[in-house]
Amino acid sequence: MSLADPASSAHSSSAPSSSDPVANLAALIRCPSVTPAEGGALGVLDAMLAPLGFSVNRVLAQEEGTPDIENLYARLGSPGGPHLLFAGHTDVVPVGDAAAWTHPPFSATVENGMMYGRGAVDMKGGIACFIAAVARYVDRHGAPKGAISLLITGDEEGPAINGTTKLLDWAKARGERWDACIVGEPTNPDRLGDMIKIGRRGSLSGTVMVHGVQGHAAYPHLADSPVRGALQLATALMDPPFDAGTENFQPSNLEVTSLDVGNPAVNVIPARATFRFNIRFNDTWDADSLKAEIIARLDRAAADGPLRPGRDPVRYDLVWNERPSHVFLTRSNQLISSLSSAVEAVTGRQPALSTTGGTSDARFIKDHCPVVEFGLVGQTMHMVDERVSVADLETLTGIYLAFLERWFDNAAA
Amino acid sequence: MSLADPASSAHSSSAPSSSDPVANLAALIRCPSVTPAEGGALGVLDAMLAPLGFSVNRVLAQEEGTPDIENLYARLGSPGGPHLLFAGHTDVVPVGDAAAWTHPPFSATVENGMMYGRGAVDMKGGIACFIAAVARYVDRHGAPKGAISLLITGDEEGPAINGTTKLLDWAKARGERWDACIVGEPTNPDRLGDMIKIGRRGSLSGTVMVHGVQGHAAYPHLADSPVRGALQLATALMDPPFDAGTENFQPSNLEVTSLDVGNPAVNVIPARATFRFNIRFNDTWDADSLKAEIIARLDRAAADGPLRPGRDPVRYDLVWNERPSHVFLTRSNQLISSLSSAVEAVTGRQPALSTTGGTSDARFIKDHCPVVEFGLVGQTMHMVDERVSVADLETLTGIYLAFLERWFDNAAA
Repeated sequence: MSLADPASSAHSSSAPSSSDPVANLAALIRCPSVTPAEGGALGVLDAMLAPLGFSVNRVLAQEEGTPDIENLYARLGSPGGPHLLFAGHTDVVPVGDAAAWTHPPFSATVENGMMYGRGAVDMKGGIACFIAAVARYVDRHGAPKGAISLLITGDEEGPAINGTTKLLDWAKARGERWDACIVGEPTNPDRLGDMIKIGRRGSLSGTVMVHGVQGHAAYPHLADSPVRGALQLATALMDPPFDAGTENFQPSNLEVTSLDVGNPAVNVIPARATFRFNIRFNDTWDADSLKAEIIARLDRAAADGPLRPGRDPVRYDLVWNERPSHVFLTRSNQLISSLSSAVEAVTGRQPALSTTGGTSDARFIKDHCPVVEFGLVGQTMHMVDERVSVADLETLTGIYLAFLERWFDNAAA
Repeated sequence: MSLADPASSAHSSSAPSSSDPVANLAALIRCPSVTPAEGGALGVLDAMLAPLGFSVNRVLAQEEGTPDIENLYARLGSPGGPHLLFAGHTDVVPVGDAAAWTHPPFSATVENGMMYGRGAVDMKGGIACFIAAVARYVDRHGAPKGAISLLITGDEEGPAINGTTKLLDWAKARGERWDACIVGEPTNPDRLGDMIKIGRRGSLSGTVMVHGVQGHAAYPHLADSPVRGALQLATALMDPPFDAGTENFQPSNLEVTSLDVGNPAVNVIPARATFRFNIRFNDTWDADSLKAEIIARLDRAAADGPLRPGRDPVRYDLVWNERPSHVFLTRSNQLISSLSSAVEAVTGRQPALSTTGGTSDARFIKDHCPVVEFGLVGQTMHMVDERVSVADLETLTGIYLAFLERWFDNAAA
């Protein structure tokens, strides 16, 4: 790993041309920043943020075997006082079938009140709105009594190795501390104001290899079918459920996502069967207690089951596939209430406080400060014709502005 | 399909030089007749059989998409009177790692009373002994009061398309009818005299493709895991057992021999899962009733199971993989008692009457006449260093001779 630290740029504030979220987003969409390409997107951000008074750092993260990733950290305000972090990413997923798009995926064409473009909702739109909100905040209130920072990665849709985690470490090493964070990912299922994410389930994956004894299908007593063993083990991981859910979380759920034998001969009992699983787990568990439960289930199913009566226990190896994503739940009333109140004030709707869905980079940030997520409507993310309502961009900008005002007021109180 | 019918050869009997099973086998092993190659083996047989008085036919079987196969049908004796058939094959399985053999696999080297060679027990040895027994029978009794025929295929270890079935049809079309058949496959687990096969289980194979709905592992309610479906279906095919066995047969047994998904992404629920199965079934079932039971099990498990509570039934396709091998059981007391009595007279052991093991070409012959199987000790078949005890060759020749005497005596009575 190496983190380059180019000279930071700082400019005095001028007219907040970046207070228009639609213009901000169009400029960002026109940068073809498919992971791991920067595509010009961070330069666009620099040009928006510096005039607002941000000191902007471009941070290059490198690690052998992974692509170099450019990231950005920008800070506005004075040392001391409450410090709010906005986190997001400018990288986008590939466009898929470019010819299938109604408008070119990097054109930011507006038609019938919708702006088309890869990243429109996931999540250049959230960044565009937050910057517009900061521009309006500064225009209305002057520099915040405290600090606002943006942590923008180019590696959220990729392996997430040279992204948020390294950028957090980089900033922390320079003395940065945050009191709260809002992540601008799309969180609303249908309408702006539906849902704030206040936590996420954890995620844990593993691979099980079951060892049998190869033989002829006509002589099963001379063989030991690893398929029978794998069926017993895989079934035991999915039945019964791990829990019934908790106050803030839906039930934990395990999926066996692949099971493979690769035996071409239908009259041969094979020697090995392998399966992979992924579990999304709630705050009933931590990674260690969950691993222990999984191993206990595997061992019980290995020792006894309907498919191998009277046999010795199934022999298997278990490998945990990757660093688990830990479960988290934000309990900061001040952060949640500032955001909920802002959403309600602007939209008239009381947002649900949810912990559903996949993981996000909030899982890294929660070790540094309380974190919530709120952004656009996610329906078209990752799809052909990803698009955002121009009206929603204005509404989200208003929500972010109302949130900034509430959060700094509450933090000062 | 086309069956060539070269001129048959017939010679008058002379000194039975073929009465030595060890010499017969050595000559056969030295022919590298790995399926589909004839390797000279049928020529060797012709040279042994013609001097005994057999009329020998070489029958070429052809079918588009399969290799041409040479087969042999030889007949000794007069029309009318009881007609005994001996069935076997001169083709052998590949040698595997030739360098791992103690002696070259086509050398027929004898060391410490064992003759080494591919096909020594499966089943050139059985043919060598039967021919020696016929030579001794003719030398002792003259031509049989009836007929002895040999039906020798070169396609038993291969797809069995251009082998026994076509040769049976060929002979039947020429007016051949048989009263009984003995197949010379290795049937003895440990010692000569252990076991006669009086039937075989059937074999049926199928492939099940389970259709799901792809999705993200974090949103299982938006997807439909085909792995869950496949686990329910595959488990239901193996539990509970199909039956507890019958008077003459061990329990039917189904093995899922492969299950494959091929999903590289551990956080994605895949769209499809496929599994293959093979069932060895006893006379509780015929192919049709068994197929109905399998479909009923699949449909029950598709409609309901622990891994998909509240879901619509699993969508699946079932393809039966190949022509089933039908179960058969020989009930001819005369054939079984002649052979049992011969085994007991020569070895002093009463052979078990068994229906265990895989399928054999007897499954085709049973439609033409009662059939049993008896040959050498099978322990080294298909292995490196396949070998046979020279003493066993002499003993088996004695058993076949005693059987010929008893069978023709009983048939005449």
